[in-house]
Amino acid sequence: MLRGVLLDLGGVVYDGETVIPGSAEAVGRLRAYGLAVRFISNTTRSPRAALVRQLAAFGIVVAEHELVTPAGAARDWLLRNRRSPHLVVHPKLRPEFDGVSFEGAPAVVVGDAGDTFDYAMLNAAFRQLMEGAAFIALANNRMFKDRDGLPSMDAGAFVAALEFASGVKAEVIGKPAPAFFHAALAEMGCTAQEVSMVGDDAESDVAGALRAELGCALLVRTGKYRAGDETRFSPKPSAVVADLAEAVDHILSKVG
Amino acid sequence: MLRGVLLDLGGVVYDGETVIPGSAEAVGRLRAYGLAVRFISNTTRSPRAALVRQLAAFGIVVAEHELVTPAGAARDWLLRNRRSPHLVVHPKLRPEFDGVSFEGAPAVVVGDAGDTFDYAMLNAAFRQLMEGAAFIALANNRMFKDRDGLPSMDAGAFVAALEFASGVKAEVIGKPAPAFFHAALAEMGCTAQEVSMVGDDAESDVAGALRAELGCALLVRTGKYRAGDETRFSPKPSAVVADLAEAVDHILSKVG
Repeated sequence: MLRGVLLDLGGVVYDGETVIPGSAEAVGRLRAYGLAVRFISNTTRSPRAALVRQLAAFGIVVAEHELVTPAGAARDWLLRNRRSPHLVVHPKLRPEFDGVSFEGAPAVVVGDAGDTFDYAMLNAAFRQLMEGAAFIALANNRMFKDRDGLPSMDAGAFVAALEFASGVKAEVIGKPAPAFFHAALAEMGCTAQEVSMVGDDAESDVAGALRAELGCALLVRTGKYRAGDETRFSPKPSAVVADLAEAVDHILSKVG
Repeated sequence: MLRGVLLDLGGVVYDGETVIPGSAEAVGRLRAYGLAVRFISNTTRSPRAALVRQLAAFGIVVAEHELVTPAGAARDWLLRNRRSPHLVVHPKLRPEFDGVSFEGAPAVVVGDAGDTFDYAMLNAAFRQLMEGAAFIALANNRMFKDRDGLPSMDAGAFVAALEFASGVKAEVIGKPAPAFFHAALAEMGCTAQEVSMVGDDAESDVAGALRAELGCALLVRTGKYRAGDETRFSPKPSAVVADLAEAVDHILSKVG
Protein backbone atom coordinates (compact mmCIF):
# COMPACT_ATOMS: atom_id res chain seq x y z
CA MET A 1 0.00 0.00 0.00
CA LEU A 2 1.61 3.27 -1.17
CA ARG A 3 1.21 6.18 1.25
CA GLY A 4 4.10 8.54 0.43
CA VAL A 5 6.60 9.69 -2.18
CA LEU A 6 10.14 10.96 -1.77
CA LEU A 7 11.39 13.24 -4.55
CA ASP A 8 14.95 14.26 -5.28
CA LEU A 9 15.27 17.96 -6.22
CA GLY A 10 18.18 18.76 -8.58
CA GLY A 11 17.76 16.87 -11.86
CA VAL A 12 14.19 15.80 -10.98
CA VAL A 13 12.23 18.96 -10.09
CA TYR A 14 14.65 21.47 -11.57
CA ASP A 15 17.95 21.71 -13.42
CA GLY A 16 20.07 24.55 -12.08
CA GLU A 17 17.88 27.66 -12.27
CA THR A 18 15.17 26.12 -14.49
CA VAL A 19 12.16 24.03 -13.47
CA ILE A 20 11.79 20.77 -15.42
CA PRO A 21 8.50 21.14 -17.36
CA GLY A 22 5.49 19.52 -15.70
CA SER A 23 7.11 19.21 -12.26
CA ALA A 24 4.85 21.62 -10.35
CA GLU A 25 1.73 20.01 -11.79
CA ALA A 26 3.11 16.52 -11.03
CA VAL A 27 3.72 17.39 -7.35
CA GLY A 28 0.20 18.83 -7.19
CA ARG A 29 -1.28 15.56 -8.52
CA LEU A 30 0.51 13.51 -5.84
CA ARG A 31 -0.83 15.79 -3.12
CA ALA A 32 -4.35 15.86 -4.60
CA TYR A 33 -4.29 12.08 -4.36
CA GLY A 34 -3.62 12.37 -0.61
CA LEU A 35 -0.06 11.03 -0.71
CA ALA A 36 2.58 12.41 1.67
CA VAL A 37 5.30 14.17 -0.36
CA ARG A 38 8.77 14.98 0.94
CA PHE A 39 11.85 16.30 -0.90
CA ILE A 40 15.10 14.47 -0.12
CA SER A 41 18.12 16.17 -1.61
CA ASN A 42 21.89 15.84 -1.25
CA THR A 43 22.26 19.49 -2.17
CA THR A 44 24.68 21.11 0.23
CA ARG A 45 25.04 24.51 -1.43
CA SER A 46 21.83 26.05 -0.10
CA PRO A 47 20.18 26.21 3.31
CA ARG A 48 16.58 24.95 3.49
CA ALA A 49 15.08 28.46 3.59
CA ALA A 50 16.68 29.21 0.20
CA LEU A 51 15.34 25.95 -1.26
CA VAL A 52 11.82 26.83 -0.03
CA ARG A 53 12.08 30.19 -1.86
CA GLN A 54 13.46 28.57 -5.02
CA LEU A 55 10.63 25.99 -5.13
CA ALA A 56 8.01 28.68 -4.52
CA ALA A 57 9.35 30.54 -7.57
CA PHE A 58 8.67 27.35 -9.58
CA GLY A 59 5.10 27.19 -8.24
CA ILE A 60 5.79 24.46 -5.65
CA VAL A 61 4.86 25.47 -2.11
CA VAL A 62 6.70 23.49 0.58
CA ALA A 63 7.33 23.90 4.30
CA GLU A 64 10.91 23.63 5.61
CA HIS A 65 10.12 20.39 7.47
CA GLU A 66 9.17 18.79 4.14
CA LEU A 67 12.78 19.22 2.92
CA VAL A 68 15.17 16.52 4.12
CA THR A 69 18.76 17.72 3.68
CA PRO A 70 22.17 16.46 4.84
CA ALA A 71 22.87 19.69 6.75
CA GLY A 72 19.93 19.09 9.08
CA ALA A 73 20.92 15.45 9.62
CA ALA A 74 24.55 16.47 10.21
CA ARG A 75 23.51 19.01 12.82
CA ASP A 76 21.61 16.24 14.62
CA TRP A 77 24.71 14.00 14.38
CA LEU A 78 26.96 16.68 15.90
CA LEU A 79 24.58 17.34 18.79
CA ARG A 80 24.17 13.59 19.43
CA ASN A 81 27.95 12.95 19.31
CA ARG A 82 28.90 16.19 21.09
CA ARG A 83 31.33 17.41 18.41
CA SER A 84 31.99 20.90 17.07
CA PRO A 85 31.98 21.14 13.28
CA HIS A 86 35.14 21.95 11.31
CA LEU A 87 33.29 23.07 8.20
CA VAL A 88 34.37 22.39 4.61
CA VAL A 89 31.11 23.63 3.09
CA HIS A 90 29.73 26.38 0.90
CA PRO A 91 29.64 29.72 2.77
CA LYS A 92 25.84 29.84 2.35
CA LEU A 93 25.51 26.64 4.39
CA ARG A 94 27.56 27.77 7.39
CA PRO A 95 24.62 29.34 9.29
CA GLU A 96 22.94 25.90 9.50
CA PHE A 97 25.64 24.97 12.05
CA ASP A 98 25.46 28.11 14.19
CA GLY A 99 25.66 27.47 17.91
CA VAL A 100 26.92 23.86 17.70
CA SER A 101 29.98 23.97 19.94
CA PHE A 102 31.63 21.40 22.21
CA GLU A 103 35.00 20.85 23.86
CA GLY A 104 37.44 18.32 22.40
CA ALA A 105 38.31 17.13 18.89
CA PRO A 106 35.91 18.47 16.25
CA ALA A 107 34.24 16.64 13.36
CA VAL A 108 35.32 17.61 9.86
CA VAL A 109 32.08 18.18 7.88
CA VAL A 110 32.47 18.12 4.07
CA GLY A 111 29.81 19.32 1.66
CA ASP A 112 29.85 20.69 -1.87
CA ALA A 113 31.84 23.86 -1.38
CA GLY A 114 31.78 24.56 -5.12
CA ASP A 115 34.17 27.25 -6.28
CA THR A 116 35.24 27.92 -2.69
CA PHE A 117 37.19 24.60 -2.49
CA ASP A 118 40.89 25.37 -2.42
CA TYR A 119 44.10 23.84 -1.14
CA ALA A 120 44.23 25.78 2.14
CA MET A 121 40.65 24.77 3.04
CA LEU A 122 41.22 21.09 2.34
CA ASN A 123 44.64 21.00 3.99
CA ALA A 124 43.30 22.55 7.20
CA ALA A 125 40.67 19.78 7.31
CA PHE A 126 43.31 17.14 6.54
CA ARG A 127 45.39 18.35 9.50
CA GLN A 128 42.34 18.12 11.79
CA LEU A 129 41.84 14.51 10.68
CA MET A 130 45.50 13.74 11.37
CA GLU A 131 44.99 15.12 14.88
CA GLY A 132 42.04 12.82 15.58
CA ALA A 133 38.95 14.69 14.34
CA ALA A 134 35.87 12.68 13.37
CA PHE A 135 34.90 12.81 9.67
CA ILE A 136 31.40 13.16 8.26
CA ALA A 137 30.46 13.68 4.62
CA LEU A 138 27.21 15.55 3.97
CA ALA A 139 27.09 13.78 0.64
CA ASN A 140 29.28 11.45 -1.36
CA ASN A 141 28.07 12.15 -4.92
CA ARG A 142 30.54 11.90 -7.78
CA MET A 143 29.12 14.66 -10.00
CA PHE A 144 26.13 16.83 -10.76
CA LYS A 145 24.81 18.49 -13.92
CA ASP A 146 26.06 22.06 -13.73
CA ARG A 147 24.40 25.25 -14.97
CA ASP A 148 26.32 25.02 -18.27
CA GLY A 149 24.81 21.57 -18.88
CA LEU A 150 28.09 19.71 -18.31
CA PRO A 151 28.96 17.41 -15.39
CA SER A 152 30.89 18.97 -12.50
CA MET A 153 32.71 17.34 -9.58
CA ASP A 154 30.57 16.98 -6.49
CA ALA A 155 31.41 16.72 -2.78
CA GLY A 156 32.32 13.01 -2.97
CA ALA A 157 35.52 13.79 -4.84
CA PHE A 158 36.78 15.97 -1.99
CA VAL A 159 35.70 13.38 0.57
CA ALA A 160 37.79 10.85 -1.40
CA ALA A 161 40.79 13.23 -1.39
CA LEU A 162 40.65 13.63 2.41
CA GLU A 163 40.09 9.91 2.97
CA PHE A 164 43.07 9.03 0.79
CA ALA A 165 45.46 11.51 2.42
CA SER A 166 44.42 10.87 6.04
CA GLY A 167 43.53 7.18 5.96
CA VAL A 168 40.30 8.09 7.86
CA LYS A 169 37.00 6.87 6.35
CA ALA A 170 34.09 9.35 6.30
CA GLU A 171 30.64 8.53 7.61
CA VAL A 172 28.19 9.60 4.87
CA ILE A 173 25.17 11.53 6.17
CA GLY A 174 23.12 12.09 2.99
CA LYS A 175 21.87 9.64 0.35
CA PRO A 176 22.58 6.72 -0.04
CA ALA A 177 22.91 6.30 3.75
CA PRO A 178 19.93 4.20 4.91
CA ALA A 179 19.67 6.34 8.07
CA PHE A 180 18.99 9.41 5.91
CA PHE A 181 16.10 7.73 4.07
CA HIS A 182 14.79 6.44 7.41
CA ALA A 183 14.84 9.97 8.89
CA ALA A 184 12.63 11.10 5.98
CA LEU A 185 10.25 8.16 6.52
CA ALA A 186 9.99 8.94 10.24
CA GLU A 187 9.12 12.55 9.39
CA MET A 188 6.32 11.31 7.07
CA GLY A 189 5.06 8.71 9.53
CA CYS A 190 5.40 5.95 6.89
CA THR A 191 7.16 2.59 6.79
CA ALA A 192 9.80 2.00 4.08
CA GLN A 193 7.54 -0.31 2.06
CA GLU A 194 4.82 2.37 1.93
CA VAL A 195 7.05 4.89 0.12
CA SER A 196 8.34 5.34 -3.44
CA MET A 197 11.49 7.29 -4.38
CA VAL A 198 12.02 9.27 -7.60
CA GLY A 199 15.57 10.29 -8.54
CA ASP A 200 18.00 10.98 -11.40
CA ASP A 201 21.00 9.33 -9.66
CA ALA A 202 20.83 5.56 -10.24
CA GLU A 203 23.41 4.95 -7.50
CA SER A 204 22.60 7.34 -4.69
CA ASP A 205 18.83 7.90 -5.14
CA VAL A 206 17.65 4.64 -6.64
CA ALA A 207 19.97 1.87 -5.46
CA GLY A 208 20.24 3.75 -2.13
CA ALA A 209 16.46 3.82 -1.63
CA LEU A 210 16.10 0.14 -2.50
CA ARG A 211 18.93 -0.80 -0.11
CA ALA A 212 17.02 1.19 2.54
CA GLU A 213 14.10 -1.15 1.64
CA LEU A 214 11.74 1.45 0.15
CA GLY A 215 8.84 -0.13 -1.72
CA CYS A 216 9.78 1.23 -5.14
CA ALA A 217 12.42 3.51 -6.75
CA LEU A 218 11.99 5.16 -10.16
CA LEU A 219 14.85 6.51 -12.26
CA VAL A 220 14.09 9.59 -14.39
CA ARG A 221 15.98 10.33 -17.62
CA THR A 222 16.46 14.01 -16.69
CA GLY A 223 19.27 15.74 -14.76
CA LYS A 224 22.52 13.78 -14.55
CA TYR A 225 20.98 10.63 -16.10
CA ARG A 226 23.19 9.07 -18.79
CA ALA A 227 22.25 6.21 -21.10
CA GLY A 228 23.04 2.91 -19.40
CA ASP A 229 22.68 4.20 -15.82
CA GLU A 230 19.73 1.81 -15.28
CA THR A 231 22.03 -1.23 -15.43
CA ARG A 232 25.17 0.34 -13.91
CA PHE A 233 24.31 -0.07 -10.21
CA SER A 234 22.61 -2.62 -8.03
CA PRO A 235 19.77 -2.89 -7.05
CA LYS A 236 18.36 -1.73 -10.39
CA PRO A 237 15.45 0.77 -10.65
CA SER A 238 11.88 -0.53 -10.28
CA ALA A 239 11.17 1.37 -13.53
CA VAL A 240 12.80 3.99 -15.77
CA VAL A 241 10.64 6.95 -16.88
CA ALA A 242 11.14 10.10 -18.95
CA ASP A 243 10.68 12.64 -16.17
CA LEU A 244 8.83 13.47 -12.96
CA ALA A 245 5.49 13.86 -14.77
CA GLU A 246 5.79 10.33 -16.15
CA ALA A 247 6.98 9.06 -12.75
CA VAL A 248 3.76 10.39 -11.20
CA ASP A 249 1.68 8.71 -13.94
CA HIS A 250 3.46 5.46 -13.08
CA ILE A 251 2.96 5.86 -9.31
CA LEU A 252 -0.72 6.79 -9.59
CA SER A 253 -1.41 3.88 -11.99
CA LYS A 254 -0.13 1.51 -9.28
CA VAL A 255 -2.25 2.94 -6.49
CA GLY A 256 -5.08 2.68 -8.96
CA MET B 1 77.48 -6.84 -5.11
CA LEU B 2 76.45 -3.21 -4.42
CA ARG B 3 77.29 -0.76 -7.22
CA GLY B 4 74.84 2.10 -6.77
CA VAL B 5 72.59 4.00 -4.37
CA LEU B 6 69.29 5.76 -5.01
CA LEU B 7 68.45 8.58 -2.59
CA ASP B 8 65.11 10.26 -2.05
CA LEU B 9 65.43 14.06 -1.64
CA GLY B 10 62.71 15.65 0.55
CA GLY B 11 62.86 14.20 4.07
CA VAL B 12 66.19 12.45 3.40
CA VAL B 13 68.64 15.08 2.09
CA TYR B 14 66.66 18.15 3.17
CA ASP B 15 63.47 19.17 4.92
CA GLY B 16 61.83 22.12 3.18
CA GLU B 17 64.50 24.84 2.96
CA THR B 18 66.93 23.18 5.41
CA VAL B 19 69.56 20.51 4.74
CA ILE B 20 69.40 17.53 7.12
CA PRO B 21 72.73 17.62 9.04
CA GLY B 22 75.43 15.31 7.65
CA SER B 23 73.73 14.81 4.28
CA ALA B 24 76.33 16.52 2.08
CA GLU B 25 79.20 14.62 3.75
CA ALA B 26 77.23 11.34 3.47
CA VAL B 27 76.73 11.78 -0.29
CA GLY B 28 80.44 12.60 -0.61
CA ARG B 29 81.38 9.34 1.17
CA LEU B 30 79.25 7.25 -1.22
CA ARG B 31 80.92 8.89 -4.21
CA ALA B 32 84.41 8.58 -2.72
CA TYR B 33 83.74 4.87 -2.44
CA GLY B 34 83.09 4.74 -6.20
CA LEU B 35 79.35 4.03 -5.94
CA ALA B 36 76.96 5.48 -8.52
CA VAL B 37 74.58 7.91 -6.80
CA ARG B 38 71.25 9.09 -8.23
CA PHE B 39 68.47 11.12 -6.63
CA ILE B 40 64.96 9.78 -7.20
CA SER B 41 62.27 12.15 -6.00
CA ASN B 42 58.51 12.39 -6.37
CA THR B 43 58.74 16.15 -5.97
CA THR B 44 56.60 17.79 -8.60
CA ARG B 45 56.82 21.39 -7.44
CA SER B 46 60.23 22.19 -8.93
CA PRO B 47 61.85 21.60 -12.30
CA ARG B 48 65.18 19.76 -12.25
CA ALA B 49 67.25 22.92 -12.82
CA ALA B 50 65.82 24.38 -9.59
CA LEU B 51 66.63 21.19 -7.67
CA VAL B 52 70.22 21.30 -8.96
CA ARG B 53 70.54 24.89 -7.63
CA GLN B 54 68.95 23.98 -4.29
CA LEU B 55 71.29 21.00 -3.78
CA ALA B 56 74.33 23.13 -4.73
CA ALA B 57 73.32 25.59 -1.97
CA PHE B 58 73.49 22.64 0.46
CA GLY B 59 76.99 21.70 -0.79
CA ILE B 60 75.84 18.81 -2.98
CA VAL B 61 76.87 19.13 -6.61
CA VAL B 62 74.72 17.12 -9.03
CA ALA B 63 74.13 17.11 -12.78
CA GLU B 64 70.54 17.24 -14.08
CA HIS B 65 70.77 13.68 -15.47
CA GLU B 66 71.46 12.43 -11.93
CA LEU B 67 68.00 13.60 -10.84
CA VAL B 68 65.18 11.21 -11.67
CA THR B 69 61.83 13.02 -11.45
CA PRO B 70 58.26 12.18 -12.48
CA ALA B 71 58.08 15.18 -14.83
CA GLY B 72 60.86 13.78 -17.01
CA ALA B 73 59.28 10.32 -17.04
CA ALA B 74 55.86 11.82 -17.82
CA ARG B 75 57.28 13.77 -20.76
CA ASP B 76 58.68 10.49 -22.12
CA TRP B 77 55.26 8.85 -21.60
CA LEU B 78 53.47 11.63 -23.52
CA LEU B 79 55.89 11.46 -26.44
CA ARG B 80 55.67 7.64 -26.55
CA ASN B 81 51.85 7.67 -26.37
CA ARG B 82 51.43 10.74 -28.61
CA ARG B 83 49.24 12.70 -26.18
CA SER B 84 49.20 16.41 -25.36
CA PRO B 85 49.28 17.17 -21.64
CA HIS B 86 46.31 18.77 -19.85
CA LEU B 87 48.35 20.00 -16.88
CA VAL B 88 47.20 20.02 -13.25
CA VAL B 89 50.65 20.92 -11.88
CA HIS B 90 52.49 23.68 -10.10
CA PRO B 91 53.11 26.66 -12.42
CA LYS B 92 56.87 26.20 -11.97
CA LEU B 93 56.65 22.73 -13.51
CA ARG B 94 54.77 23.76 -16.67
CA PRO B 95 57.92 24.53 -18.74
CA GLU B 96 59.02 20.87 -18.42
CA PHE B 97 56.17 20.04 -20.85
CA ASP B 98 56.85 22.76 -23.43
CA GLY B 99 56.51 21.65 -27.03
CA VAL B 100 54.67 18.37 -26.30
CA SER B 101 51.65 18.67 -28.60
CA PHE B 102 49.59 16.11 -30.50
CA GLU B 103 46.15 15.87 -32.11
CA GLY B 104 43.35 14.01 -30.33
CA ALA B 105 42.33 13.51 -26.73
CA PRO B 106 44.93 14.79 -24.25
CA ALA B 107 46.30 13.13 -21.11
CA VAL B 108 45.43 14.76 -17.78
CA VAL B 109 48.73 15.07 -15.86
CA VAL B 110 48.38 15.62 -12.09
CA GLY B 111 51.23 16.69 -9.82
CA ASP B 112 51.46 18.53 -6.53
CA ALA B 113 50.01 21.89 -7.50
CA GLY B 114 50.23 23.10 -3.89
CA ASP B 115 48.33 26.29 -3.17
CA THR B 116 47.35 26.60 -6.82
CA PHE B 117 44.88 23.66 -6.58
CA ASP B 118 41.36 25.01 -6.82
CA TYR B 119 37.93 23.87 -7.90
CA ALA B 120 38.09 25.31 -11.41
CA MET B 121 41.44 23.61 -12.12
CA LEU B 122 40.27 20.20 -10.90
CA ASN B 123 36.87 20.45 -12.56
CA ALA B 124 38.41 21.28 -15.95
CA ALA B 125 40.56 18.13 -15.63
CA PHE B 126 37.51 16.11 -14.52
CA ARG B 127 35.63 17.21 -17.65
CA GLN B 128 38.57 16.17 -19.85
CA LEU B 129 38.50 12.71 -18.23
CA MET B 130 34.73 12.46 -18.84
CA GLU B 131 35.44 13.24 -22.52
CA GLY B 132 37.96 10.40 -22.85
CA ALA B 133 41.32 11.90 -21.85
CA ALA B 134 44.05 9.56 -20.56
CA PHE B 135 45.06 10.05 -16.92
CA ILE B 136 48.58 10.00 -15.52
CA ALA B 137 49.64 10.87 -11.97
CA LEU B 138 53.15 12.25 -11.55
CA ALA B 139 53.03 10.95 -7.99
CA ASN B 140 50.50 9.34 -5.72
CA ASN B 141 51.84 10.33 -2.28
CA ARG B 142 49.41 10.89 0.56
CA MET B 143 51.28 13.67 2.37
CA PHE B 144 54.62 15.42 2.85
CA LYS B 145 56.22 17.25 5.75
CA ASP B 146 55.58 20.93 5.04
CA ARG B 147 57.75 23.96 5.82
CA ASP B 148 55.87 24.51 9.09
CA GLY B 149 56.80 21.00 10.21
CA LEU B 150 53.25 19.65 9.89
CA PRO B 151 51.97 17.13 7.32
CA SER B 152 50.30 18.56 4.21
CA MET B 153 48.19 16.85 1.54
CA ASP B 154 50.21 15.68 -1.45
CA ALA B 155 49.29 15.04 -5.09
CA GLY B 156 47.78 11.59 -4.38
CA ALA B 157 44.77 13.17 -2.69
CA PHE B 158 43.86 15.11 -5.83
CA VAL B 159 44.46 12.03 -7.97
CA ALA B 160 42.01 10.18 -5.68
CA ALA B 161 39.46 13.01 -6.08
CA LEU B 162 39.61 12.83 -9.89
CA GLU B 163 39.54 9.03 -9.92
CA PHE B 164 36.47 8.98 -7.67
CA ALA B 165 34.52 11.56 -9.67
CA SER B 166 35.39 10.25 -13.15
CA GLY B 167 35.68 6.52 -12.52
CA VAL B 168 38.97 6.59 -14.50
CA LYS B 169 42.04 5.07 -12.79
CA ALA B 170 45.32 7.02 -13.07
CA GLU B 171 48.57 5.46 -14.20
CA VAL B 172 51.20 6.48 -11.62
CA ILE B 173 54.47 7.68 -13.15
CA GLY B 174 56.64 8.32 -10.04
CA LYS B 175 57.50 6.09 -7.06
CA PRO B 176 56.31 3.41 -6.28
CA ALA B 177 55.88 2.54 -9.99
CA PRO B 178 58.48 -0.17 -10.80
CA ALA B 179 59.06 1.44 -14.23
CA PHE B 180 60.23 4.63 -12.50
CA PHE B 181 62.84 2.78 -10.41
CA HIS B 182 63.87 0.85 -13.52
CA ALA B 183 64.40 4.09 -15.47
CA ALA B 184 66.78 5.23 -12.72
CA LEU B 185 68.64 1.89 -12.81
CA ALA B 186 68.99 2.11 -16.60
CA GLU B 187 70.43 5.61 -16.27
CA MET B 188 73.01 4.25 -13.75
CA GLY B 189 73.82 1.16 -15.81
CA CYS B 190 73.08 -1.11 -12.82
CA THR B 191 70.80 -4.09 -12.26
CA ALA B 192 68.13 -3.86 -9.55
CA GLN B 193 69.99 -6.20 -7.21
CA GLU B 194 73.12 -4.01 -7.40
CA VAL B 195 71.34 -0.93 -6.00
CA SER B 196 70.18 0.22 -2.54
CA MET B 197 67.39 2.76 -1.93
CA VAL B 198 67.23 5.22 0.99
CA GLY B 199 63.91 6.95 1.73
CA ASP B 200 61.64 8.40 4.44
CA ASP B 201 58.41 7.04 2.89
CA ALA B 202 57.95 3.43 3.99
CA GLU B 203 55.29 2.86 1.35
CA SER B 204 56.45 4.68 -1.77
CA ASP B 205 60.28 4.67 -1.35
CA VAL B 206 60.91 1.49 0.61
CA ALA B 207 58.15 -1.00 -0.21
CA GLY B 208 58.17 0.42 -3.76
CA ALA B 209 61.91 -0.19 -4.22
CA LEU B 210 61.66 -3.73 -2.84
CA ARG B 211 58.69 -4.52 -5.12
CA ALA B 212 60.88 -3.25 -8.00
CA GLU B 213 63.39 -5.89 -6.75
CA LEU B 214 66.14 -3.54 -5.60
CA GLY B 215 68.79 -5.27 -3.47
CA CYS B 216 68.08 -3.31 -0.31
CA ALA B 217 65.89 -0.45 0.94
CA LEU B 218 66.62 1.57 4.08
CA LEU B 219 64.03 3.64 5.94
CA VAL B 220 65.31 6.83 7.64
CA ARG B 221 63.60 8.31 10.70
CA THR B 222 63.70 11.85 9.26
CA GLY B 223 61.19 13.73 7.08
CA LYS B 224 57.68 12.32 7.10
CA TYR B 225 58.70 9.21 9.10
CA ARG B 226 56.28 8.44 11.96
CA ALA B 227 56.77 5.81 14.67
CA GLY B 228 55.44 2.48 13.42
CA ASP B 229 55.96 3.17 9.69
CA GLU B 230 58.48 0.29 9.54
CA THR B 231 55.73 -2.28 10.06
CA ARG B 232 52.88 -0.45 8.30
CA PHE B 233 53.64 -1.51 4.72
CA SER B 234 54.87 -4.59 2.92
CA PRO B 235 57.60 -5.46 2.04
CA LYS B 236 59.23 -4.07 5.21
CA PRO B 237 62.50 -2.08 5.15
CA SER B 238 65.81 -3.98 5.00
CA ALA B 239 66.85 -1.79 7.96
CA VAL B 240 65.69 1.35 9.80
CA VAL B 241 68.31 4.03 10.52
CA ALA B 242 68.34 7.48 12.11
CA ASP B 243 69.18 9.51 9.01
CA LEU B 244 71.11 9.56 5.73
CA ALA B 245 74.51 9.65 7.51
CA GLU B 246 73.65 6.43 9.38
CA ALA B 247 72.23 4.92 6.17
CA VAL B 248 75.59 5.50 4.49
CA ASP B 249 77.42 3.89 7.47
CA HIS B 250 75.12 0.88 7.04
CA ILE B 251 75.62 0.67 3.26
CA LEU B 252 79.41 1.03 3.44
CA SER B 253 79.64 -1.58 6.23
CA LYS B 254 77.97 -4.06 3.86
CA VAL B 255 80.26 -3.39 0.89
CA GLY B 256 83.33 -3.09 3.13
